[in-house]
Amino acid sequence: MTGVTAGSLDAWMTTQLVGVEAALDAWVTDAAVPDLGWGAPTGLTQAMRYAVLDGGKRLRPLLTLAAYEALVPTPGASGKSAAMRAACAVELIHAYSLVHDDMPCMDNDVLRRGKPTVHVKFGEAGALLAGDALQALAFELLTPDDGSVPLPVQGRLCGVLARAAGSTGMAGGQAIDLASVGHTLDEPALRHMHQLKTGALLHASVMLGAICGQAPEPVMHALSDYGHAIGLAFQVVDDVLDVISDSAALGKTAGKDADNDKPTYVSLLGLEASQRLAKELLTRAEAALQASGLANTSALAGLASLVVQRSH
Amino acid sequence: MTGVTAGSLDAWMTTQLVGVEAALDAWVTDAAVPDLGWGAPTGLTQAMRYAVLDGGKRLRPLLTLAAYEALVPTPGASGKSAAMRAACAVELIHAYSLVHDDMPCMDNDVLRRGKPTVHVKFGEAGALLAGDALQALAFELLTPDDGSVPLPVQGRLCGVLARAAGSTGMAGGQAIDLASVGHTLDEPALRHMHQLKTGALLHASVMLGAICGQAPEPVMHALSDYGHAIGLAFQVVDDVLDVISDSAALGKTAGKDADNDKPTYVSLLGLEASQRLAKELLTRAEAALQASGLANTSALAGLASLVVQRSH
Repeated sequence: MTGVTAGSLDAWMTTQLVGVEAALDAWVTDAAVPDLGWGAPTGLTQAMRYAVLDGGKRLRPLLTLAAYEALVPTPGASGKSAAMRAACAVELIHAYSLVHDDMPCMDNDVLRRGKPTVHVKFGEAGALLAGDALQALAFELLTPDDGSVPLPVQGRLCGVLARAAGSTGMAGGQAIDLASVGHTLDEPALRHMHQLKTGALLHASVMLGAICGQAPEPVMHALSDYGHAIGLAFQVVDDVLDVISDSAALGKTAGKDADNDKPTYVSLLGLEASQRLAKELLTRAEAALQASGLANTSALAGLASLVVQRSH
Repeated sequence: MTGVTAGSLDAWMTTQLVGVEAALDAWVTDAAVPDLGWGAPTGLTQAMRYAVLDGGKRLRPLLTLAAYEALVPTPGASGKSAAMRAACAVELIHAYSLVHDDMPCMDNDVLRRGKPTVHVKFGEAGALLAGDALQALAFELLTPDDGSVPLPVQGRLCGVLARAAGSTGMAGGQAIDLASVGHTLDEPALRHMHQLKTGALLHASVMLGAICGQAPEPVMHALSDYGHAIGLAFQVVDDVLDVISDSAALGKTAGKDADNDKPTYVSLLGLEASQRLAKELLTRAEAALQASGLANTSALAGLASLVVQRSH
């Protein structure tokens, strides 16, 4: 686990990303857009594709695939297909949340990864519907009727993803975030918010891979610890980057949280303590991988380092 | 099936509705709202409850329960619990779609069932998040981890609901609806739009009950026909009511579709032909029930009549 090199992680990621991009491209398709006879496509699928196929980092799919491969080092086509569906499903939930977050009634962002946001490009109604449809599509991906994912696994995957996305997960965290502007949160409250807002989905990314890999209970537990640690680390680093980076490197407007008087780790703990916390969480993630007893955790370890050491 | 009386349907509905309201009240709860120590609830659950617990007609849950009971006339507690979860899940999808539809960037409605719409009451961001969380909660309801719904059934239910909600179902229909303003649609195009926009979820309501009742394939097929017929009938009648009713009876702004130059059955076929079509679809639904070979279809038959003969 500690033997991961930047080079080997890069090679692994490159391979996986080719698969993820191809799968997303295939699964977010125009096939469903009906020909109404008056030459007007609905634009819905177009907006969905614009939101998804935009060169995101794909951290969540990579976590799913890394967790799966830690359990099934030489996957057969069938198991890998279930993991790839789960990987793409979690990315669709992430993508939909960005589309809705960027809307004028939320963060009112016009730029995302250097491109106009979905509502700028497709209108607010188009962005609203595209986000809604992407959430549904995530659950469609998890429930193919071609036998490629066993029905009981479909049920488990849907349960984990739904809870991570909903009011006790991502949506709940966003609601707390909205309500907390101008309030003084203490560290436990801030931690709780972030665990829901971004942590839950990152944690779920790992768990979905673990479910596809049929992890036994103790391994599931260790991978859950890993998922919680990197989930929180991700947000702490996000807060740090919002302060120390410029907009060009981030691909979005920097310093926005502070401008909006939003509570962040940096505003609460200070910059150095936040950076220290991120490193502690990395150590916790690495310890969890050790505790899992799995041999093939180099990709998971590499992704944890990447989360903490990234510059954007 | 033809022996259903208004009185017996009323009695059945009253009993079922008590169960549905209690279940929704229990499942859309405040339990998940964390105490952040500064006395501010997030408002998310409050907005979700406001959107759901508002005295809707509950047609979709009733369809699910009626289909289930057509297959399992004297349900045990366990089977009934799965059907009730499915019934509430489909209502949550319906509720979220209304919340998002009413938003300023969509239909910009301020009144729903005689009450201020969710975005008027909780703000646009609150409405956006509440809708998002309601969609996720639907899939949470279908995937309990207490063994009350077998995992393979969870998978099937999630698959049917996701497809009915997404870009090849409700969201897709709404996107076509948005894009079709000012266009001349022919009857097949209009039918396609409605089959997606409202028909898919009504059809799914029936299928979810059929899955919980473990319908054999030929019965599933007949119930699917029934679901398609009433799904389309519902929208045809909606178009008719938009023309012949006043706002007070509808609980929303009447005549809005015509004002917005939206294509409707009435604008396309005329009032009388639309009313005739609705009756033909009722006949088709009744024929499908006959073809199902099920003995206990009086509730399904009664609901089909209700869909066509309702005044709001």
